[in-house]
Amino acid sequence: MLKNDLLIRAAKGQHVERTPVWVMRQAGRVLPEYRATRARAGSFIKLVKTPELACEVTLQPVDILGVDAAIIFSDILVIPEALGLPYTMDEGRGPHFEKTIRSETDLNSLSVDRVVDHLNYVTDAIRLTKEELNDRVPLIGFAGAPWTIFCYMVEGKGSKEFSLARRMLKEQPEMAHRLLSVITDATIVYLQAQIEAGANLVQVFDSWAGVLSRELYQTFCIPYLKKITESVNTVPVTLFSKGAWFSIEDLASLPCDTIGLDWQVHPTLAREWAPNKTLQGNLDPAVLYGSYDEIRHSTQEMLKAFGAQRHIANLGHGVYPDMDPGKLKCFIETVQEYQYK
Amino acid sequence: MLKNDLLIRAAKGQHVERTPVWVMRQAGRVLPEYRATRARAGSFIKLVKTPELACEVTLQPVDILGVDAAIIFSDILVIPEALGLPYTMDEGRGPHFEKTIRSETDLNSLSVDRVVDHLNYVTDAIRLTKEELNDRVPLIGFAGAPWTIFCYMVEGKGSKEFSLARRMLKEQPEMAHRLLSVITDATIVYLQAQIEAGANLVQVFDSWAGVLSRELYQTFCIPYLKKITESVNTVPVTLFSKGAWFSIEDLASLPCDTIGLDWQVHPTLAREWAPNKTLQGNLDPAVLYGSYDEIRHSTQEMLKAFGAQRHIANLGHGVYPDMDPGKLKCFIETVQEYQYK
Repeated sequence: MLKNDLLIRAAKGQHVERTPVWVMRQAGRVLPEYRATRARAGSFIKLVKTPELACEVTLQPVDILGVDAAIIFSDILVIPEALGLPYTMDEGRGPHFEKTIRSETDLNSLSVDRVVDHLNYVTDAIRLTKEELNDRVPLIGFAGAPWTIFCYMVEGKGSKEFSLARRMLKEQPEMAHRLLSVITDATIVYLQAQIEAGANLVQVFDSWAGVLSRELYQTFCIPYLKKITESVNTVPVTLFSKGAWFSIEDLASLPCDTIGLDWQVHPTLAREWAPNKTLQGNLDPAVLYGSYDEIRHSTQEMLKAFGAQRHIANLGHGVYPDMDPGKLKCFIETVQEYQYK
Repeated sequence: MLKNDLLIRAAKGQHVERTPVWVMRQAGRVLPEYRATRARAGSFIKLVKTPELACEVTLQPVDILGVDAAIIFSDILVIPEALGLPYTMDEGRGPHFEKTIRSETDLNSLSVDRVVDHLNYVTDAIRLTKEELNDRVPLIGFAGAPWTIFCYMVEGKGSKEFSLARRMLKEQPEMAHRLLSVITDATIVYLQAQIEAGANLVQVFDSWAGVLSRELYQTFCIPYLKKITESVNTVPVTLFSKGAWFSIEDLASLPCDTIGLDWQVHPTLAREWAPNKTLQGNLDPAVLYGSYDEIRHSTQEMLKAFGAQRHIANLGHGVYPDMDPGKLKCFIETVQEYQYK
């Protein structure tokens, strides 16, 4: 039994005494304690792949910042790697894949069979973390959404436009659907393995949703997110499609529990678009560059706009590396101390 | 007198016999003829700064693609350069500024006085182009919006998040306003000089609008766009804030004539948000990766959704370098041949 189950109750739409709060990228980036562990690991990927160290950085924000949930320290790109595309993470330049998927031959080289075995280091990290957490707060598992993973597998690196990936949707739609299916199958077994290892809630990140039109999103994203949310149904599921305000109504039709929001979507509009879902977010991360007073004020305004129930407080995107942990803590405490009138 | 003044009439909300069409980045990128001229110039910046060559590539899409308007070949970053921040354009890595604006001292080093002199090469290119065009179609002038220029001047290069720029809005709001004012003043004299040289319509590109919240957009963007649209009032003005669907209602309150739309905003929604403006856009550029049939179909659907009046057809963003000019031409011809029922 979780001692603090606010996140889970909020996700399920059950009554909460106060709004739960956690922060995307809370593990990693902003804490000096994280940087120390990462330095010991030697590299980002080494840190991801070493369960003891991944567990250590997962716990740091719970101990230091007092968030209402831990999120397992990992990376969305472990799925392409487990499917057969290894990658490197270059400081300041992002991920790089030597091999990409551009042809049927490339596609046929992928194998879903050994995904879970390949990702034992993640489930090991989850089991370790669950032990260490000792049910203080829930542990969140996660994966990238099929479209976002597809972007990296086709493009081979980050991009502003992901035009190669979008090109494939238009030029080779059948192959695109096949690749998305493979990713979806891998994602489902991966999320199920995370849940079996102890994850209390899972979040699916569609980081590059915003480069698509609503029409393409309906064709190439929604069906796969539907399959994931239908298959992964033993814990609450959160869908976060960054930049895809136009998809919120479509996401609201899926059997997910929570919809994540970036800071461009006003809470009132999101409530209109997704009246039956819990909403998560969405303070502009840049607010944390402001004064303590401003952080408190903006956070309170956000809480008022969402209301006391069916809301999980968070930033609208990951915290930035150059932010002051003290200010992040101010955001968290403001949520935890807020009294709704 | 312009022989084809469809663009101007559509922008002013006057009756047109058919929808005018042009394409963002039509000059540059996609045509082999452009690549040949660029190779002769030696570099992108050299091409921008050589009026004869800038004129040549400006005319190419008029002659080859048959668009209803030319847009002067230039770059939004000529403004920071004219203010005192030179830049280089690295192949595949985008712009890079040696000097950035981070302090009052940096800010005080900027001077608006000589902006127009510095940018003689642009006004020369406009004059040359107007001669060569011989009033076949209108010539569009342009500039970056103050916020987008601010992003580059603070960050010194492209970025996914522009967190340094957003940080300044929060940490040094007065300095941010001062810098935005300087950029705005420079932009106004620059656009006026373009009009004096012959530009028949001007467009202001806010390429990085999408990283802001509506609140920050209202505080740090709208007032400066207001000043520009109030000061530049002898030709129609188009405002295009990419990714900033949340700003359309605010933009519609300004004295501009046309609002540009990216492909995420459905025409019906945009008509609701900006009922009194001409709308420009917004085919998903990725459609041009599809078959000729699909391009025709999607273009016709878009035209139907906007309706026959107060619309300027365009893509929702610039054409991508790897697109087939034949397919771009198919888009243009589909617009020009379309019969509204």
